[in-house]
Amino acid sequence: MSSKILLYDTTLRDGAQREGTSLSVEDKLKILHKLDEFGIPYIECGFPASNPKEAEFFNVLKRQELRQAVPVAFGSTRRALISTDKDRDLEALVRAETPTVCIVGKTWELHVKSALKTSLDENLWMIADSVEYLKKRGLEVIYDAEHFFDGYKDNPSYAMKTLKAAIDTGADFICLCDTNGGTLPLEMQTILKEVSSKINVPLGIHAHNDSECAVANSLIAVEEGVVMVQGTINGYGERCGNANLVSIIPALVLKNNIQVVSRAQLSKLTELSHFVAEICNINPDAHQPYVGQNAFAHKGGIHVSAVARLPETYEHVNPEAVGNLQRVVVSELSGKSTIILKAKELGKDLSNHPEKVQEILDTIKGLEHVGYHFEAADGSFELLMRRSMNMHKVFFRLESFRVIMEKREDGRVATEATIKIHVKGERIIATAEGNGPVNALDNALRIAIGKAYPELQHIQLTDYKVRVLDEKKGTAAVTRVLIETGDGEKNWGTIGVSENIIEASWQALVDSIEYGLLHKKAPAEE
Amino acid sequence: MSSKILLYDTTLRDGAQREGTSLSVEDKLKILHKLDEFGIPYIECGFPASNPKEAEFFNVLKRQELRQAVPVAFGSTRRALISTDKDRDLEALVRAETPTVCIVGKTWELHVKSALKTSLDENLWMIADSVEYLKKRGLEVIYDAEHFFDGYKDNPSYAMKTLKAAIDTGADFICLCDTNGGTLPLEMQTILKEVSSKINVPLGIHAHNDSECAVANSLIAVEEGVVMVQGTINGYGERCGNANLVSIIPALVLKNNIQVVSRAQLSKLTELSHFVAEICNINPDAHQPYVGQNAFAHKGGIHVSAVARLPETYEHVNPEAVGNLQRVVVSELSGKSTIILKAKELGKDLSNHPEKVQEILDTIKGLEHVGYHFEAADGSFELLMRRSMNMHKVFFRLESFRVIMEKREDGRVATEATIKIHVKGERIIATAEGNGPVNALDNALRIAIGKAYPELQHIQLTDYKVRVLDEKKGTAAVTRVLIETGDGEKNWGTIGVSENIIEASWQALVDSIEYGLLHKKAPAEE
Repeated sequence: MSSKILLYDTTLRDGAQREGTSLSVEDKLKILHKLDEFGIPYIECGFPASNPKEAEFFNVLKRQELRQAVPVAFGSTRRALISTDKDRDLEALVRAETPTVCIVGKTWELHVKSALKTSLDENLWMIADSVEYLKKRGLEVIYDAEHFFDGYKDNPSYAMKTLKAAIDTGADFICLCDTNGGTLPLEMQTILKEVSSKINVPLGIHAHNDSECAVANSLIAVEEGVVMVQGTINGYGERCGNANLVSIIPALVLKNNIQVVSRAQLSKLTELSHFVAEICNINPDAHQPYVGQNAFAHKGGIHVSAVARLPETYEHVNPEAVGNLQRVVVSELSGKSTIILKAKELGKDLSNHPEKVQEILDTIKGLEHVGYHFEAADGSFELLMRRSMNMHKVFFRLESFRVIMEKREDGRVATEATIKIHVKGERIIATAEGNGPVNALDNALRIAIGKAYPELQHIQLTDYKVRVLDEKKGTAAVTRVLIETGDGEKNWGTIGVSENIIEASWQALVDSIEYGLLHKKAPAEE
Repeated sequence: MSSKILLYDTTLRDGAQREGTSLSVEDKLKILHKLDEFGIPYIECGFPASNPKEAEFFNVLKRQELRQAVPVAFGSTRRALISTDKDRDLEALVRAETPTVCIVGKTWELHVKSALKTSLDENLWMIADSVEYLKKRGLEVIYDAEHFFDGYKDNPSYAMKTLKAAIDTGADFICLCDTNGGTLPLEMQTILKEVSSKINVPLGIHAHNDSECAVANSLIAVEEGVVMVQGTINGYGERCGNANLVSIIPALVLKNNIQVVSRAQLSKLTELSHFVAEICNINPDAHQPYVGQNAFAHKGGIHVSAVARLPETYEHVNPEAVGNLQRVVVSELSGKSTIILKAKELGKDLSNHPEKVQEILDTIKGLEHVGYHFEAADGSFELLMRRSMNMHKVFFRLESFRVIMEKREDGRVATEATIKIHVKGERIIATAEGNGPVNALDNALRIAIGKAYPELQHIQLTDYKVRVLDEKKGTAAVTRVLIETGDGEKNWGTIGVSENIIEASWQALVDSIEYGLLHKKAPAEE
């Protein structure tokens, strides 16, 4: 295992292949600078020859100042049976003017024959010529051996010849790709042991997650002497994604003691993960290792008191090391210690007020009995705690609302909500339409109080979940609505429960907005 | 590596610990039977002593007939310094009347001292006494060694003593748990090599995913000779989840050639994964290995044509082997053979009408594109088939409806629906109140058509589920409603999709009632 490991991020190229993802030039720049700040040494920026948007990005890239990262342009070996000088893709790679380039070539006989439709020898020439062409232009060259593991299993001698073609012409790194993501961990270990003993150019690993082993395979590769790890933030990528750098980095730093980034940089990992999710317009995975909001969540009385005393009993790493937080989840099992801990977070010491703690616990139990469930509703839980401790602030007061929904004879559906509300001493009546009843109510509420609270524009609902409880009652059953809201910096969950879905939604909506106004973010420019 | 590996599912116990998940007794039964059908040999059903809902489940369980699975009750070693005969939790375990039980005990010195607050020797007695107590009652006993890997790293000699305590008193399996999920793959391999050489009782592995290595760790454990693999469907579980059986099973069958389930059972893997997601009210992960709708999706020109010619060039396993499909995002119901089969059930032979089959397939794909999902909506699927083949019967025709919902100043909520409908040549206007908008509509519809179709009284909604799709759009997102209906003899599922929850519910409601009237049961006494 080398103590100097190089991280290589391909979120902007392979990550952007994720189905449903589309990054603008602006989006890519934001991610680029965030990765640079975080301390990723190699950032693959795209495939300049693939389309005009990519080409444009490389033009803009020339004017970017990076703190430490090396931007990389990606391409492939020359096409079959043409000279490198006539290959426009290779030319585009040089014109990208990045100090380092990465080119992918075929390792697997099957692909040479079926995809390239050329001879095995010509493929070797394609690799050699392309690496030579780029090296002659003074570039650092990373050679990505596509389908390396499948190719090696099929025909190890030919697979090794393809690597030799790149090595002999001066490739600086040979990166072994598990392109289809099918290689299992110990199979990867066996192959790496065989290959690394025969090669003296630095090796890299590029794993995909189709077998749910990409992180493990990358970590095993490092233990087998690989020095470059390619992956993406949050494991984004096509099909099942790429190796997730967000899980690889803390394992290397905290468990293998390899300082791929500093401790200070590592403490920004959660922020980096959520930032990239935000730009890619993907909901962060609450259960994601290290950075998910549940990654260090704890339920249950005894368990929680043990965690409070000795976090390492139930936490594999310190959440603060990766910029995450320990979260105490409130559930039916929750005990007094949870309430005291939560109150402390809000700045109140209840440890000498057992009657207050009991009162709050009773309130929670009563609410849980009728279907509330505060695990995913930290926002509502905090508001409940504040109300119990007289720390609550009233932002507006509802007088009444009415929602009308019609399905007309032509099949069209119309929804309208009218709301009467008191805010800052004024009585306001507002009406709005919406896609559905809850959306109409949301819109009407924003019209009614938006003038008094302009910061409301930053507060956006990001998730709306409905769960029907006691489903046997069919359409008369109790409904639980969970809303998740964000202001661009943080997220919070709120809850409403009622036999009437609109009423349940209203409760969750009001909590969502009250919590947001209570914790409003500082104005950016005022 | 043993060729006989036993799968042990703990979705109903450890999986249900996932933050925000709450399973009713009915939900648990549905999952239990699905796992049994799929062929999981051990199914952990819960912790009978933990709360009354769990205890109720074990009572209901006694009346269930399983095809092949062994249900397992879970508990822990006796409490410190009491006799086993006085331990209510152990007693509850015996009263659960499952042939197999699993008990968890402490391995890690730190936990014995800080969580149990007892002596290291007493912990050994707790393990030995508890296993002995259960073995004396004729039960198969699986001993889960909690925090085994952390404990072993801290104090290997004490960790081994805890295992010995369970082995000497007759435990049938020793399952090594990576409870905090922090163990990396090669570290796990090293420890397993050391431990397995010293133990001759069958070993199991129970991995958590906090390092994103749970699947890899489980597969490595199998290669190191472990015979029982504990995990959950879709990796559900607290924090970052448990080892994902949905990724472990196909790796074992297709890659390691270990027939933990048959090929026929394996082809139901995608269905199993989605079924459990549905019951847990969690959106299936589109990027999930093997079973995600993007797991075999392909982008890019050359790539796609290569895939079309030779799928193995870009697919690590055959998607059909796990019941998934290449590229096109369609459900299992939408294969041509399924359409022909379903038509035959309805009395039409479409085998010589490929254009009709294609037309139906296109309709389904269009509907799936906007969020329909017929896997759990057999009723709506049949109605769609009937409409496509002109076999549809019209029972009533809606002119329009209107729903008014008010929250009044005194806080009271009132909901009223008015419906205008044509039935058997008559135009009927009916108004009804309800707990919520959908219930009011349901009531009004029953008043409007109840006289024309008295058999409606036998048709009762039994389940009503709401799922918000594209959750990022908050309250403006598309909503999918699934209704389950029964007439005392059979059950059927129907679906509606719309941006408006009331409209989506209406679609599912109309299908539910039409299907019921179409298949009305013979009048009992007339």
